Amino acid sequence: MRKNLCLIAFMLLSASCIMAQPRGNNRRWANTTSPQIHADNKVTFRYMAPNAKEVKLSGQFMDQPVDMVKNDMGVWEVTVGPVAPDMYPYEFVVDGVRVMDPGNADYFPNENFKGSMLEVKDIQPMAYSIQNVPHGNVDYVMYDSSSIGATGRMLVYTPPGYDANSDKKYPVFYCISGTTDTEEVYFKVGRANFILDNLIASGKAEPMIVVMPYGNPAAYFAPGTELPKIDLFSEMLMKDIIPYVDKNYRTINDRLGRGIGGFSRGGAQALRNGLMNTDRFAWICSYSSGISANDFEKNYKAFYENPDKTNKDMKLLWLGVGNSDFLYNLATDFDDVLTKHRINHIFHVSSGGHTWMNAKLYLLETFQRLFKTTNY
Amino acid sequence: MRKNLCLIAFMLLSASCIMAQPRGNNRRWANTTSPQIHADNKVTFRYMAPNAKEVKLSGQFMDQPVDMVKNDMGVWEVTVGPVAPDMYPYEFVVDGVRVMDPGNADYFPNENFKGSMLEVKDIQPMAYSIQNVPHGNVDYVMYDSSSIGATGRMLVYTPPGYDANSDKKYPVFYCISGTTDTEEVYFKVGRANFILDNLIASGKAEPMIVVMPYGNPAAYFAPGTELPKIDLFSEMLMKDIIPYVDKNYRTINDRLGRGIGGFSRGGAQALRNGLMNTDRFAWICSYSSGISANDFEKNYKAFYENPDKTNKDMKLLWLGVGNSDFLYNLATDFDDVLTKHRINHIFHVSSGGHTWMNAKLYLLETFQRLFKTTNY
Repeated sequence: MRKNLCLIAFMLLSASCIMAQPRGNNRRWANTTSPQIHADNKVTFRYMAPNAKEVKLSGQFMDQPVDMVKNDMGVWEVTVGPVAPDMYPYEFVVDGVRVMDPGNADYFPNENFKGSMLEVKDIQPMAYSIQNVPHGNVDYVMYDSSSIGATGRMLVYTPPGYDANSDKKYPVFYCISGTTDTEEVYFKVGRANFILDNLIASGKAEPMIVVMPYGNPAAYFAPGTELPKIDLFSEMLMKDIIPYVDKNYRTINDRLGRGIGGFSRGGAQALRNGLMNTDRFAWICSYSSGISANDFEKNYKAFYENPDKTNKDMKLLWLGVGNSDFLYNLATDFDDVLTKHRINHIFHVSSGGHTWMNAKLYLLETFQRLFKTTNY
Repeated sequence: MRKNLCLIAFMLLSASCIMAQPRGNNRRWANTTSPQIHADNKVTFRYMAPNAKEVKLSGQFMDQPVDMVKNDMGVWEVTVGPVAPDMYPYEFVVDGVRVMDPGNADYFPNENFKGSMLEVKDIQPMAYSIQNVPHGNVDYVMYDSSSIGATGRMLVYTPPGYDANSDKKYPVFYCISGTTDTEEVYFKVGRANFILDNLIASGKAEPMIVVMPYGNPAAYFAPGTELPKIDLFSEMLMKDIIPYVDKNYRTINDRLGRGIGGFSRGGAQALRNGLMNTDRFAWICSYSSGISANDFEKNYKAFYENPDKTNKDMKLLWLGVGNSDFLYNLATDFDDVLTKHRINHIFHVSSGGHTWMNAKLYLLETFQRLFKTTNY
């Protein structure tokens, strides 16, 4: 029977390969393994495209795309590196068109660009690695958003030991996706769940629930639909998402048990909703985003006009940005205006740009501060 | 401030678009919306590739790939259909290379081919549509597989009303992914969760937990690793997955409360583990798979030698296959040998091939039979 199962498996596998790759001579024996990570952390990428004129590799582990070279099997190949251990988005540029690596199941969950993910491991596990510690769950949740008339999507991380039958309650961190990223991005690219699993196991983070809503609710409507003239995301967050989470999870349902953060446009949404609603949120994080000084002084008077009260109320206001991020000036602008108004905050500048390598660092940093007593 | 947020959103969106598409004149105003579904269910597909020599559309809604035509903006375009309401995998074939549709966030979760998903809606919602009914959750679960020394992955559906604080227990259906499909396939392509949400809401299915483990555990090991000489999946299923689920979810922990099924190679795994362990499973479903008569008669004697006992023990043995499936003969072979040995079963032949359009129909059919008293 084993033999028969193998035969079936082979048939199915063959059918699948035929679907996956172009037909052609030689194809059957061509090595299309990609990415292949060598012991010295050099990485070989391969892409089958016998008819392409030019194939390049573009990845966030390199400054510039590099040319790939076609072998006599029609496979384009290049070896780069050594690459520093991390997780990086990359694509192939095939005659000018950016495509995923067909051999790689790990992809960047985005509505627009189609990137694959490279993970180069270190000798020691990284902060975001899957380690032999208790794992929390990540739930896909479809919730009814009656405030805008759509079914919303979010992911919800519950920490290890979130026991369905216990009475323990947990603080909640809301983490909002950035432009064109889907609700999966903190999970599949940010590894928020594994970072927290590891931090919780070593006692460095409080066990918490992390809610990862999709940040662009306009996309729930058919193209061309006239949208309600409201701030769609804020409506969903305040009227649907937070009530849903407080009803369906064992949450600490007050401002001291609730934080909000986000990357890129999600960071702007986190700042807006957090700073406008300090009665709901005592912990606010901005990853690679900011508010301009003009905007802040014009629209956030309630937040800054009584700094002593704000500083007493706010348990954490944390800003992180890369020194080559295209929003670096916006973030420093925001840092300055907060300082000018004597608002306690942490401004964390890392090297690098508007990347998820940085966002992972910010998650790692802030998860160790959230829901703890002292931060300043 | 709204204005400022819009500015940030625009900057981020622009950055993202630049990443997503090739630079070039005219690009900025080219219509790359894809897929665009018209009122008459015709569908227009578009793909920006100014340098490509030939672009085809390949989709499971068509018998053969069709040529796309390049406009003066470098966008290849074709309109097909009308397409019958359903969800279909499709790809673009760009100079012989199969790629996803960059404009479409819905993809087929596979380790190998990179297909996008087209959903054509009907006037009435389909059985798998997101409807305005209570929704269950889908959990991403990382479990420790000590039997093979790896961290395994699975998705777990809990039905609406699975209340963390109640004592109600639920039956469990194990649903195994096929060759090169990931553990997401029953969720993102099969819509098992929405099918069940809808059936439960209308009283047509028992509320149940559905466990969707990844079916190819050899992939958890680095390439070249010498694997343990055991049936890896069966080891994980029996020693790690089922105990994990019974410990962490409120399950009916006996054979009458446990079923198993799968598509393609996952169907073969479901049959093997189900028929070999009737003390654990009373409900077995094979979607587009089978066991050959020779194999069955040689290796499954305990199952067929006392048909009266087997028929009393088994609550459901259900086989579904398409009449043009490449495994159709295997499935009919299995149907015949079961009949020969007087084993009660249902053999359901649909039109079409080895597709997820069929697999969705089989899920719809079997979810209405699982964990009910009469099936024959």
